[in-house]
Amino acid sequence: MLRIGWEKPDLEAVDLEGLEKLRRECGADIVRMTTLATCGHPGGSLSCLHILLTLYSNMRHDPVAPLDPERDRLVVSNGHISPGVYSVLARAGYVRPEQVLLGFRRAGSPFGGHVEPKVPGVEWATGNLGQGFAAAVGSALATKLRGSRATTFCLMGDGEQQKGQISEARRIAVKFGLTNLVGIVDRNRLQIGGKTDEIMPQNVNEEWEAGGWNVLDLEDGHDFGLVYKTLRRAVRREVDRPDRPTVVVARTVMGKGIPFIENDHKYHGSALGPADAGKALVLFGAAADPAAAAADLAAWTDRRKGAPPAWPLPPRETARATLDPGTPVDYTPSTAPDMRSAYGKVLEDLAKRNNATGAPPKVLAFTCDLEESVKMGGIKKATPGAFFECGVQEHATASVAGRLSHEGYVVFFSTFGVFGVDEVYNQLRLNDFNEASLKVVCTHMGLSVGEDGPTHQSVDYLALLGGLFGFRIAIPADPNQTDRVIRHVATTPGNWFVGLPRAKTGVVVNSDGTPRYGGAWKYVPGEADRIAEGSDAAILAIGPMVTNALEARRLLKESSGIEASVWNFVSIEPFPASAVIEAARTGVVVTVEDHSVWGGLGTRVAERLAMVPPIVLRKLGVRGYQTSGPYQDLYEAAGLSPKGIADAVDAAVRTARPRRPNGGGGK
Amino acid sequence: MLRIGWEKPDLEAVDLEGLEKLRRECGADIVRMTTLATCGHPGGSLSCLHILLTLYSNMRHDPVAPLDPERDRLVVSNGHISPGVYSVLARAGYVRPEQVLLGFRRAGSPFGGHVEPKVPGVEWATGNLGQGFAAAVGSALATKLRGSRATTFCLMGDGEQQKGQISEARRIAVKFGLTNLVGIVDRNRLQIGGKTDEIMPQNVNEEWEAGGWNVLDLEDGHDFGLVYKTLRRAVRREVDRPDRPTVVVARTVMGKGIPFIENDHKYHGSALGPADAGKALVLFGAAADPAAAAADLAAWTDRRKGAPPAWPLPPRETARATLDPGTPVDYTPSTAPDMRSAYGKVLEDLAKRNNATGAPPKVLAFTCDLEESVKMGGIKKATPGAFFECGVQEHATASVAGRLSHEGYVVFFSTFGVFGVDEVYNQLRLNDFNEASLKVVCTHMGLSVGEDGPTHQSVDYLALLGGLFGFRIAIPADPNQTDRVIRHVATTPGNWFVGLPRAKTGVVVNSDGTPRYGGAWKYVPGEADRIAEGSDAAILAIGPMVTNALEARRLLKESSGIEASVWNFVSIEPFPASAVIEAARTGVVVTVEDHSVWGGLGTRVAERLAMVPPIVLRKLGVRGYQTSGPYQDLYEAAGLSPKGIADAVDAAVRTARPRRPNGGGGK
Repeated sequence: MLRIGWEKPDLEAVDLEGLEKLRRECGADIVRMTTLATCGHPGGSLSCLHILLTLYSNMRHDPVAPLDPERDRLVVSNGHISPGVYSVLARAGYVRPEQVLLGFRRAGSPFGGHVEPKVPGVEWATGNLGQGFAAAVGSALATKLRGSRATTFCLMGDGEQQKGQISEARRIAVKFGLTNLVGIVDRNRLQIGGKTDEIMPQNVNEEWEAGGWNVLDLEDGHDFGLVYKTLRRAVRREVDRPDRPTVVVARTVMGKGIPFIENDHKYHGSALGPADAGKALVLFGAAADPAAAAADLAAWTDRRKGAPPAWPLPPRETARATLDPGTPVDYTPSTAPDMRSAYGKVLEDLAKRNNATGAPPKVLAFTCDLEESVKMGGIKKATPGAFFECGVQEHATASVAGRLSHEGYVVFFSTFGVFGVDEVYNQLRLNDFNEASLKVVCTHMGLSVGEDGPTHQSVDYLALLGGLFGFRIAIPADPNQTDRVIRHVATTPGNWFVGLPRAKTGVVVNSDGTPRYGGAWKYVPGEADRIAEGSDAAILAIGPMVTNALEARRLLKESSGIEASVWNFVSIEPFPASAVIEAARTGVVVTVEDHSVWGGLGTRVAERLAMVPPIVLRKLGVRGYQTSGPYQDLYEAAGLSPKGIADAVDAAVRTARPRRPNGGGGK
Repeated sequence: MLRIGWEKPDLEAVDLEGLEKLRRECGADIVRMTTLATCGHPGGSLSCLHILLTLYSNMRHDPVAPLDPERDRLVVSNGHISPGVYSVLARAGYVRPEQVLLGFRRAGSPFGGHVEPKVPGVEWATGNLGQGFAAAVGSALATKLRGSRATTFCLMGDGEQQKGQISEARRIAVKFGLTNLVGIVDRNRLQIGGKTDEIMPQNVNEEWEAGGWNVLDLEDGHDFGLVYKTLRRAVRREVDRPDRPTVVVARTVMGKGIPFIENDHKYHGSALGPADAGKALVLFGAAADPAAAAADLAAWTDRRKGAPPAWPLPPRETARATLDPGTPVDYTPSTAPDMRSAYGKVLEDLAKRNNATGAPPKVLAFTCDLEESVKMGGIKKATPGAFFECGVQEHATASVAGRLSHEGYVVFFSTFGVFGVDEVYNQLRLNDFNEASLKVVCTHMGLSVGEDGPTHQSVDYLALLGGLFGFRIAIPADPNQTDRVIRHVATTPGNWFVGLPRAKTGVVVNSDGTPRYGGAWKYVPGEADRIAEGSDAAILAIGPMVTNALEARRLLKESSGIEASVWNFVSIEPFPASAVIEAARTGVVVTVEDHSVWGGLGTRVAERLAMVPPIVLRKLGVRGYQTSGPYQDLYEAAGLSPKGIADAVDAAVRTARPRRPNGGGGK
């Protein structure tokens, strides 16, 4: 890869020659990759190629240290142009071209259909359009807070400009003065279905201008000299309003470099057939003639018949702040606030302890016009530079905050449950897939939001959050438990969800009246707490329902002499499975939650009870985020092929047989 | 209520007097309502009051026929201004002021904290900002398709302008030429947290202009004459570009009419205390002096101590198209396409049969830049006016389509699963709460999306959709079943989800090789299909896994002599609970799905198995959308009060006791 930097005003002949050589090499690899996989996105890969090569020839980056904190970052928001990205990363030394050609879009390989950070040099998994741009805003905010001189670039599609999340993130970038952010729109005027002007007319430049950005028109995104000069202006802030971020709108041609597919939207998402691919390889100078090209493709096809190349994944370590978790607060029944105020107090305490004056803050707080309700006033007052009011823009905020949590900050994102889970589920999902470390603490959960009504009653969040393979979930029952859960979450990497009610529901106490979760009590993920004993029935509860369950226990004893145990299932993920079995020894289990009976505590308890004999239940399905690859290979890997299913049934029957000595069914 | 119409160029003195009288009456009711409930949103209610009154004095509407198809529609997207809306609906004759004052924000009453269509005159439940505007776009499209001369108005907050979904819906309105749509922005420059310019700076007018709309500045939204003239211009299209929709940006004052709260953002979402409320009632002329005002409030407070007034809800009937469902198609193993192509064929068939030339179409199809993938090319070609390409704008599209489905059309919305469920879950949720009748048919479900990779693999949709109390769910196993399921769904009112794979997975056949779901086979919600018998184990599968399960059954028999039954659980909601119990008689149950093991078929099967003795399980929680009201009342209604819990445990223990004659626990 060339190393030019942005110093010289114009590219020189030697630069242009070098870039042109790279373009031909990468172009050929894009064609090979997609044709070998018989799928993928060559069109946009080729419309972005000049831009990608110019960026990697000028950005500060180092293939040996792809996570260097001082690197310039490129977030590819139009993640489907993965062939273009992989081809350039290969030439830049991050991976070997051969690995890409052998691995592209195969099960078990990191070279997926949409870019993923398993591949070094890829900053963020994208492909759900609009989210990558918000992640880039988060990236620029992360380096700005740190006082780094790094620039974040964000490449976007023009069809992608239709996503509302773009307009939200655009405003966040302006509000927080992210002059270290350069957006680039690949304005090839085509999207999957056809011309952008026909699919959904849009005034791209005007919208960015209305959003308060500098807009630079790049009249030919395939003229390396012009690409360089325009990006250079953006990087050096040679713009009308240097206090604002800048977007470059690059006029490009889909499929550029292969005249017979240029401007044909079909090749947005289709590979060339072998014959056309051969012609293209000749055009890119990768083969002398069609016969040589056919031999080239045939050789690769043969090599792809084996397993994808072993790929030593680099450790996915990101910087992590080390926090002083402070000392837990003890609330008594007479001093206890509502749980969200207890949360606000911890947040303020963590900020005071960890956000030193004159240094970048470690603990950050994000909300969407609900500062007071979610009790972020304390942290805002204590360390104003660590508080980010993002307006009624939940989608972008979730993605911005998610990216920051991946850049070494401890990031809390708080709003009402219905906005922090239901509204932004897919943003949390992409954060989770990117192995972010976001602390989503939602208030006003369940029916406790009361008078705001059903549109605001979040009674489904545990069903949804179960769909995120990496999220852990805690639902505290009182302010003492909230305090300790939040301190645990702040100091434990990974994605967390904590749900709190709106109402003030008191303090959970022991039979002697002392606070149960005060003092030395510690939150241990995966453990439930048996607060009260009882052999007639077990009441399993979460959140504010724990208090009601304890009171129900008293009523039961009084009225019917029934002795019920009461369990607080504060840890929903990991789920305390053995506690369910223990509780079930009473023979009667009642779950209580101000959540739908679907998908919450009750469903999780039922799942565990269903594993109790006499019936043997096995659930085959997906147990984590998968890779890109032919669906049959993915079925195979997930145990869903006919053979996989047969093996599982066979094993299950063998488990059951000891109990069925006649070998017959249960009929 | 006055009845002016938009004929005269200016309001006359008598009009102004009448409006002013109404303003004082409504203002007083807004104060009473919120102070009595000790919560609610007086600020925006008062900033919008002149606009609301002007609209209801001029729109075509009839309190006796609130769902008249020819009515003008007002969608209140800033749903928190419900006190303002209820006060005006009361004066317009839709409800009685007394009902509102007694019912506002109480459990079991329709007068919720955010507007809900249980109240006649309310078009759409909102409160999740941004969605109401998209619903209004759907409403305008609905009447335009029908050739109606109705106008749709949409009132929005200015904080709400931050939501990305607004920018998406704005473009849809332009693309489809909705000149019958008038947006109104309540530009009071305050939102919950403070000044809009500080919370999230935004160029409201410029963004609407960039979005291609006419923008009319209304310099004083509290001058009835000016409000009238400006709205009249919008309605009569006296604008620069009459072929475009128009938005009126109304400069207003939060809390208008009560000088001591004007422009104080605290009153966005807080009620006045009794003393201040008394002063306000005097200002509005509702009481002669503070003492009289206090007596007024005390009297209402007393009356609110009883149960909320019985409220005879009007039937929530919406127009429904009667469809010719056509004749099911029979696919054989040799002629079968993939399931999504079978879907496309039905859609085309339904369009040809039901969308007559020269008449409004009955069957509509919506997609987001995935026409070809979701196989909507057929309907587009057959009846182009019934096909709506909405670009990469899933959030707005889901809301637009949802509203149309409530306006008497049979509306199909198709995209990939990850965009049609994960991305727009909260939009589907609000559609569901609004009792829409949307047919969400997603393709590329589960791992079958294969090479597009994990960002596109929808393996969580059944967990999410379970959170929507009103959605029914079907997952067909082959093209024949797809054909019949879609015809059923098209002709059955209500919200439906149908999930289809990307891949071609053949035809499910009987042991004699004949197609199992051809001919007279009919889809019956709530029924599973036992395709093959077997007494050693039961394999329960959905979608493309049914084929794999049948093949697994063959392998098992061959290799271990195990006889497994195979069940197709095509109906996920309603769930065939009795089939689970029947299948479990083998003693071994294996569920198979290309979905997460959380929240899909396996979890639903486990839920039912957990209900099998010896353990008695009861799940207490929420079983439907609730109402607005104090949270304790909602707990009570959901059986979550201590007493409710105690009663449930008591009943459970009594159920269990016959099996535990010693009365002891299971220990």
